[in-house]
Amino acid sequence: MKLSQKYGSLKPSGMSKFFQIVETMDGVCNLSIGEPDFDTESDIIDAAMIDAKNGYTHYPPLSGYLDVKEAVCNYWERHHSMKYSPDEVHMTVGGIQSLWLGLHILLDPGDEVICVEPCFGPYFNQIDWSGGKVIHLPTREENGFAAEPEEIERVITPKTKAIILCSPNNPTGRVMNKKQMERIAEVVEKHDLFVFSDEIYEALVYNKEFVSFASIPEMRKRTLIMSGLSKSHCMTGWRVGFAMGDREFVRLLTFLSANQTYGLSCVGQRAALYALNNHDAKIKERREIFKERLEYVAGRLNNISGITCAQPEGAMYLFPNIKNTGKTSEEFIMTLLHDWKVATLPGNVFGSCGEGYIRIACTQSMETLAVGMDIMEKAVSSF
Amino acid sequence: MKLSQKYGSLKPSGMSKFFQIVETMDGVCNLSIGEPDFDTESDIIDAAMIDAKNGYTHYPPLSGYLDVKEAVCNYWERHHSMKYSPDEVHMTVGGIQSLWLGLHILLDPGDEVICVEPCFGPYFNQIDWSGGKVIHLPTREENGFAAEPEEIERVITPKTKAIILCSPNNPTGRVMNKKQMERIAEVVEKHDLFVFSDEIYEALVYNKEFVSFASIPEMRKRTLIMSGLSKSHCMTGWRVGFAMGDREFVRLLTFLSANQTYGLSCVGQRAALYALNNHDAKIKERREIFKERLEYVAGRLNNISGITCAQPEGAMYLFPNIKNTGKTSEEFIMTLLHDWKVATLPGNVFGSCGEGYIRIACTQSMETLAVGMDIMEKAVSSF
Repeated sequence: MKLSQKYGSLKPSGMSKFFQIVETMDGVCNLSIGEPDFDTESDIIDAAMIDAKNGYTHYPPLSGYLDVKEAVCNYWERHHSMKYSPDEVHMTVGGIQSLWLGLHILLDPGDEVICVEPCFGPYFNQIDWSGGKVIHLPTREENGFAAEPEEIERVITPKTKAIILCSPNNPTGRVMNKKQMERIAEVVEKHDLFVFSDEIYEALVYNKEFVSFASIPEMRKRTLIMSGLSKSHCMTGWRVGFAMGDREFVRLLTFLSANQTYGLSCVGQRAALYALNNHDAKIKERREIFKERLEYVAGRLNNISGITCAQPEGAMYLFPNIKNTGKTSEEFIMTLLHDWKVATLPGNVFGSCGEGYIRIACTQSMETLAVGMDIMEKAVSSF
Repeated sequence: MKLSQKYGSLKPSGMSKFFQIVETMDGVCNLSIGEPDFDTESDIIDAAMIDAKNGYTHYPPLSGYLDVKEAVCNYWERHHSMKYSPDEVHMTVGGIQSLWLGLHILLDPGDEVICVEPCFGPYFNQIDWSGGKVIHLPTREENGFAAEPEEIERVITPKTKAIILCSPNNPTGRVMNKKQMERIAEVVEKHDLFVFSDEIYEALVYNKEFVSFASIPEMRKRTLIMSGLSKSHCMTGWRVGFAMGDREFVRLLTFLSANQTYGLSCVGQRAALYALNNHDAKIKERREIFKERLEYVAGRLNNISGITCAQPEGAMYLFPNIKNTGKTSEEFIMTLLHDWKVATLPGNVFGSCGEGYIRIACTQSMETLAVGMDIMEKAVSSF
């Protein structure tokens, strides 16, 4: 049986490869996983179940329940002062389905999509699998890993259709400010580009202000905001995401999704409704916890000879520079994993400019993070 | 902003178009929707919630929880005497995601996939969107709408890669017997084809025996069984499906899904675990209810001049022949809908050989079905 040339020899790539190694090991201090360690709050579970018992167990509308989409809009207005209407929202299976659907709606074969790197690895496959071509745009730590307009312009060709941005960023944890976005917006406007803005970490910003790319003048109609409840409401397992953007573009997402997943879990949506309407205080509480953790770990890292780490800005990640330890990213994380049982991710799985960095996910308690840092300190001094 | 040539002008097609019309109308006796009218049983909801409260709220393994996949295997062995192991199972977002993933894994651009028609309309788009070409294979009522081997062979070309079968069938409600499948299997083997076997209605067979195509000798390795809990356990809204087949093929589904939906809802899976392990009696009970409904409606239809209807065999559907009413399928269902407020679907949205038939979903109570049939009787006599 001959399989597809393109998909018939798929292998788990990038992050997944490392996750699989970690899974086979016992007693690992795991700082590799990008999901909050907190369980979903039990009142969210209760609310979902009450609705399910009231009959929310049937096919939901393809784009999502109206009240859930309203809750998404209200949340976004409350937190980010932006107005969307429910018909500009499509509920997706996790944040990740947004990009899959959006790329298909936008791209013709060979169209180019710029990835501002380091970035979330699955973007690469998603672009390729939509018939597009990945254009790698490396960034530099000196600029906070933000894309410079002239650097973007340098890789633009007549085939360039879109750019993917992610702020707060996975893996760097850096947050773009308004000025940086405005400068990128000029290039986007000038070259008639579309923007996929991964805003899944919108709720996790420290000492800075979250700016949605769609809030930059003229960018709203060109931007698909991709977000969800995985990180903000500790609901990774429920697979509840949403895409917001131009009404017509969003309608196309809905049509495409009809033959892929045919709507988003009724129970997941009901849980989201309650969570979006009732958990602002919890978000704030957890933001403080993550801030404390990230600042603590950044401080510890900066005390390790050979490692430097920027102050935390967003998401759950630190992206320390390990170049002066004399090891490559992979050597560093593999030694740390096999000899010291601390799991992190090598920066280069997020793009080649991530070489010389590692990603540390502060998704463990302060106690565990302290132990992890004690071990890392010892480990690096033994290199 | 120029959108994709292929996806940029998507429109809701076939069934969706009619569903949208029905949605705008009040007081319709709706016999068009292919979902059980029963809510998900409350003990299933309770079980899912208990597990969620016990911490099942985090990213599930990409192919599904091991115990859920074991439950799928046990269910299939208990009901259909077939042995699969958990690593031959991938949990999908509804039954529909299986085909999307499977077609991508199998097809190169231009590869042909045979649709035995009448069939579930979304197959057509799914094939097209996977880069494949739909080969329409019409069938005839006289053969119970089953594909004849010689007819299959007639449409096979060097580009033919797969055939999609669905028994119990949507929309015809007909069930293939072992002999019919064995004859198709010979063609499949001879021409080295792959089979996507849509077995979502496996639990709903009346007066006949359900046969899984994968149970035919030599067919197991060539067949992807696509099923789920939507119809068997009245869990349409939860979007829980599964694909079973060759271990390597299933592994590829998992890899592909990682960048599309990244796993299936934790809560949906926990609900499925309990439902699969505890609801055999309920399935039997509901099967009796559907059987009674289908037999009643078939009887009523056969008393209407100009309409003939085969005895029910499976699924929730009847597919009466309305040719002698002098109306086309669309004329028939539109008159019935607008003048008489009874919603059904025209047979031709399931393939052109469905012209002259309508699909009636017996997904309402006996009382509602009786009212619907009273109206239809009056309507047709007025044509």
